[in-house]
Amino acid sequence: MSSSDQKSISNIGFDNSGQKTPKRYFTKDGNSTVIRSGIKFKDRINLYNEFLNMSSWKFILLILFAYFSINLCFATIYFLLGPESLGIATTTRFCWATFSECFFFSAQTLTTVGYGRISPVRFDANVVASIESLLGLLMFSLVTGLSYGKFSKPKMKVLFSSFGLITKFKEGNAFMFRLATASKYTLTNVEVYLTLALNNIVDGVEKQEFFQLELETKNIINLVLSWTIVHPINEKSPIYNLTINDLKAKNAEFFVSLRGFEEHSSTIIQRRTSYTADEILGGKKFIKIFGYDDKKERTILRLDQLDLTEDFS
Amino acid sequence: MSSSDQKSISNIGFDNSGQKTPKRYFTKDGNSTVIRSGIKFKDRINLYNEFLNMSSWKFILLILFAYFSINLCFATIYFLLGPESLGIATTTRFCWATFSECFFFSAQTLTTVGYGRISPVRFDANVVASIESLLGLLMFSLVTGLSYGKFSKPKMKVLFSSFGLITKFKEGNAFMFRLATASKYTLTNVEVYLTLALNNIVDGVEKQEFFQLELETKNIINLVLSWTIVHPINEKSPIYNLTINDLKAKNAEFFVSLRGFEEHSSTIIQRRTSYTADEILGGKKFIKIFGYDDKKERTILRLDQLDLTEDFS
Amino acid sequence: MSSSDQKSISNIGFDNSGQKTPKRYFTKDGNSTVIRSGIKFKDRINLYNEFLNMSSWKFILLILFAYFSINLCFATIYFLLGPESLGIATTTRFCWATFSECFFFSAQTLTTVGYGRISPVRFDANVVASIESLLGLLMFSLVTGLSYGKFSKPKMKVLFSSFGLITKFKEGNAFMFRLATASKYTLTNVEVYLTLALNNIVDGVEKQEFFQLELETKNIINLVLSWTIVHPINEKSPIYNLTINDLKAKNAEFFVSLRGFEEHSSTIIQRRTSYTADEILGGKKFIKIFGYDDKKERTILRLDQLDLTEDFS
Amino acid sequence: MSSSDQKSISNIGFDNSGQKTPKRYFTKDGNSTVIRSGIKFKDRINLYNEFLNMSSWKFILLILFAYFSINLCFATIYFLLGPESLGIATTTRFCWATFSECFFFSAQTLTTVGYGRISPVRFDANVVASIESLLGLLMFSLVTGLSYGKFSKPKMKVLFSSFGLITKFKEGNAFMFRLATASKYTLTNVEVYLTLALNNIVDGVEKQEFFQLELETKNIINLVLSWTIVHPINEKSPIYNLTINDLKAKNAEFFVSLRGFEEHSSTIIQRRTSYTADEILGGKKFIKIFGYDDKKERTILRLDQLDLTEDFS
Repeated sequence: MSSSDQKSISNIGFDNSGQKTPKRYFTKDGNSTVIRSGIKFKDRINLYNEFLNMSSWKFILLILFAYFSINLCFATIYFLLGPESLGIATTTRFCWATFSECFFFSAQTLTTVGYGRISPVRFDANVVASIESLLGLLMFSLVTGLSYGKFSKPKMKVLFSSFGLITKFKEGNAFMFRLATASKYTLTNVEVYLTLALNNIVDGVEKQEFFQLELETKNIINLVLSWTIVHPINEKSPIYNLTINDLKAKNAEFFVSLRGFEEHSSTIIQRRTSYTADEILGGKKFIKIFGYDDKKERTILRLDQLDLTEDFS
Repeated sequence: MSSSDQKSISNIGFDNSGQKTPKRYFTKDGNSTVIRSGIKFKDRINLYNEFLNMSSWKFILLILFAYFSINLCFATIYFLLGPESLGIATTTRFCWATFSECFFFSAQTLTTVGYGRISPVRFDANVVASIESLLGLLMFSLVTGLSYGKFSKPKMKVLFSSFGLITKFKEGNAFMFRLATASKYTLTNVEVYLTLALNNIVDGVEKQEFFQLELETKNIINLVLSWTIVHPINEKSPIYNLTINDLKAKNAEFFVSLRGFEEHSSTIIQRRTSYTADEILGGKKFIKIFGYDDKKERTILRLDQLDLTEDFS
Repeated sequence: MSSSDQKSISNIGFDNSGQKTPKRYFTKDGNSTVIRSGIKFKDRINLYNEFLNMSSWKFILLILFAYFSINLCFATIYFLLGPESLGIATTTRFCWATFSECFFFSAQTLTTVGYGRISPVRFDANVVASIESLLGLLMFSLVTGLSYGKFSKPKMKVLFSSFGLITKFKEGNAFMFRLATASKYTLTNVEVYLTLALNNIVDGVEKQEFFQLELETKNIINLVLSWTIVHPINEKSPIYNLTINDLKAKNAEFFVSLRGFEEHSSTIIQRRTSYTADEILGGKKFIKIFGYDDKKERTILRLDQLDLTEDFS
Repeated sequence: MSSSDQKSISNIGFDNSGQKTPKRYFTKDGNSTVIRSGIKFKDRINLYNEFLNMSSWKFILLILFAYFSINLCFATIYFLLGPESLGIATTTRFCWATFSECFFFSAQTLTTVGYGRISPVRFDANVVASIESLLGLLMFSLVTGLSYGKFSKPKMKVLFSSFGLITKFKEGNAFMFRLATASKYTLTNVEVYLTLALNNIVDGVEKQEFFQLELETKNIINLVLSWTIVHPINEKSPIYNLTINDLKAKNAEFFVSLRGFEEHSSTIIQRRTSYTADEILGGKKFIKIFGYDDKKERTILRLDQLDLTEDFS
């Protein structure tokens, strides 16, 4: 990457007029904080993605709630058609008991279990029941698809150090952070991109500028242990000669994008995080987080120590 | 991209003999307008893709229609076999009532709800019912697969400005257009390709030529706000020194292809649009479409203002 | 690609000792003709791929056959347990009628329709029936997955001209062939690789050599019309100064690999074909296969004329 | 790849402080041997991946076990509610017979077969049964998804020679190994990466260093026969002038990563293996493992001879 690449990028998915707000563009989890207005709800929302990102407990509760509600609706319809449409003798039964019979008949129809102790005998109840059983099958089609989507979504957790460091590196300084995967499966063909947003004075006006930062190593084949990503702060770097306080004054934000191949689901995964100037430490260095087991035969990676640093002596 | 790349590309998926028709090659939605002849229907049509592109309402109506039709067919078969094959006593019932019993028995078999109030008692009805219940399961297998396919298809909507601009840019001119995504999820590793079709006089004959246009920035890591794609019109550009009227006379069409990684479905998506010479404005520039919320903490992107321009002063 | 690339590639997935047989390595459909020995059947065969490549009719027949066979097995078990285990009174029935009752009960259990006119009453029949209904569900799980796999497999048909040409091109000669897609959907980001296998005399011994051939254009953004792939036969080409008869004598085979992005299924597809020396014509050129409709507004691509050539005058 | 690339890579997913243990980082099957500590179980384990990697027999046994256990639970509940809640007359039956009726009723409900000979008559049993039938459908949704995931996972087996060779190559030496696919389908666009881990004396301290090794050919279009991957040991190689015993003393490990496009599932697959210094032979060369059938028309690849070598004469 030549020196000229370190000039402000006029367009990296952001427009560069105006200045950066104090609020970050990406949360630590990598979600965008930008609000989109002037767009129809149905274009903004993808229901499938919402289900995919829902926690499993919410998903199960939603299914239970839908199951109960649909049965309630159909039970009401059967009840209004009259219990004799289901062949239930009403004379010997209370109203509530009849309704509960309707409810359970509905459940037996929706799940297609269809015991047959109660069954539709009149035309109207037959029509409703044949619609309900179709609805049941279609709903469980959807649930099957959604469950598969949720389950099969590649979930490899990538852990990032919760702060970045500006520290001595070779003859100069460097910005660095550390990452590791939590999974026993190996992430492969990993690429990292580091982008910087900064408020600079351009032609006398404070403007927001974006820079693609040069990395010492930007891709690795197998992510087995931890990986420290290093941006050397040389003359070509946009943060050359800036202190951490300068970065704070300029509302600096470092965006991290990671891509890798998750081999067990054979898909490419993408993870993101960001470091604001407040999340950068100076004068520290990372301590290595792996050691050996008692027999000195296997390597142990201590993932709870990803943030462990010591003072630079 | 060197100067020589801006010579006509002899082959970019188009043959270059003959001249371009006034009709565009791609609609605004990116669909091809080319008619394919001399090919069997089954090779031209992919049923699965048809289902995938069908609107959800059409899909549901199709299922309802199929459900009703299949039940009608099987009801007719059971009716012709005679109601006594299903253990229905015919003496006490009208013809229509018998047929409706057959119909609802069919529905109970197809959905495998099988209450059992009516059930096949004779050999022939048993054979038909065992085939119907198998058919039911296979159909709902298909519906499950299709629903999953429809649901899981990455749907991120990419909005393009409805016209392109030819406007001042740095020391010269540039062709530009603008795009943004409608989704709260971020599109990443986005690449844009811009191709131009033009009728030129080559060796005294009007011929259709194609050019891959050079872009100022052709790929970005994260598409967070809006993105203005810029083709600088310098000496290397095939539209150097051409006016918008020249472009109209030459039936110019700019094809836009966008690829990006949709992270929530972990798939690559592709979107396309095209600008004909009639959809290009001169002497205008885009107005920025993002601002801040009241607390000046979050960025707001106004997607309904993607077409907003002002006169170049 | 430099001149040195046109030296024999020592290793492109083939070993280069020995000489090429007259038989081609790839069929016209792109399947390998190589026989693999010394490997266990289960490692050589992927059942899922077999199902995926099976024609739909074979797949349906297989399901019907499996359905019939499984029911026959279970019917035999129920029959051997004795009809009274299913609550069928044997005294008033013939043996065959009893067996058919068992068979249809099995079908009702496997499909989980369970009318209940016949139902297991004894412990042994209950055990068998509860296993059979589980088996039924598992089987239809599999069928659902397989149907989805079959349906969702990207099927875009790519048509290749059935022969290649060696013809005049610019100042020299070129090897060329033509292709087009049969689908109304556009194939994008298409790449073509052309490899040549040739028996050459190396150090006095006839040896098989492989060459990656240089192409005029090896990738295009949108495959809208037909595409003629051109290998210019210049001094760097391994077939420079060779006649078609020379190619026949050297058992030449040109392998074509095409990759592209099928946008409606959002997947990359791969297609292959090969041209042996017998499938190469000289002194011909391709005739363009598209024209305009009556109103001169839309382009028509005539896919049945992909092989149409005329003599070079 | 320039000479400087052959300097130690400071970071390729491994930290380079400390020294390599005698134990390898990757097993022959390509699984990582690193132990991850300090991380919650749920972040370390992906249940879906566990199911995917489970053998088919284990998977089926697990389903049978789950089916039996769930039925046992529900049978106990129905039994405790009292058999009369299911309309079973208790007076004429033994306790065990009643429990087995409850168990089989549960099975009929879970699989939604619902014969109806026994069916819930009281409110409490109805509630339990309607929950159980919902649970049954949800479970079979999951099983459907898991079966599809297991089945559709690309399984192409790649065979690696069980040792590497250090042998004469052109004017110098080379490290080489051999691979082939076991499938009749062709693996395409294959890339191989070779990484070396070595304990070196750096500044007087024994440290672990990593090197990305240069390959003669690192990617091929079609993997049809066998492929010998060659790392030429020239002055730029980190193992220049090292003997096999030197490699053993330095705990050398060669990691192999292979990526390719599996065309029948249209997915990219990844395979890995590693060679320790103990798995390297000297003074041998591979013998070609393909020949022709009796008619000299088709090529036969002998996969059981992948390890076949002869002495270098």
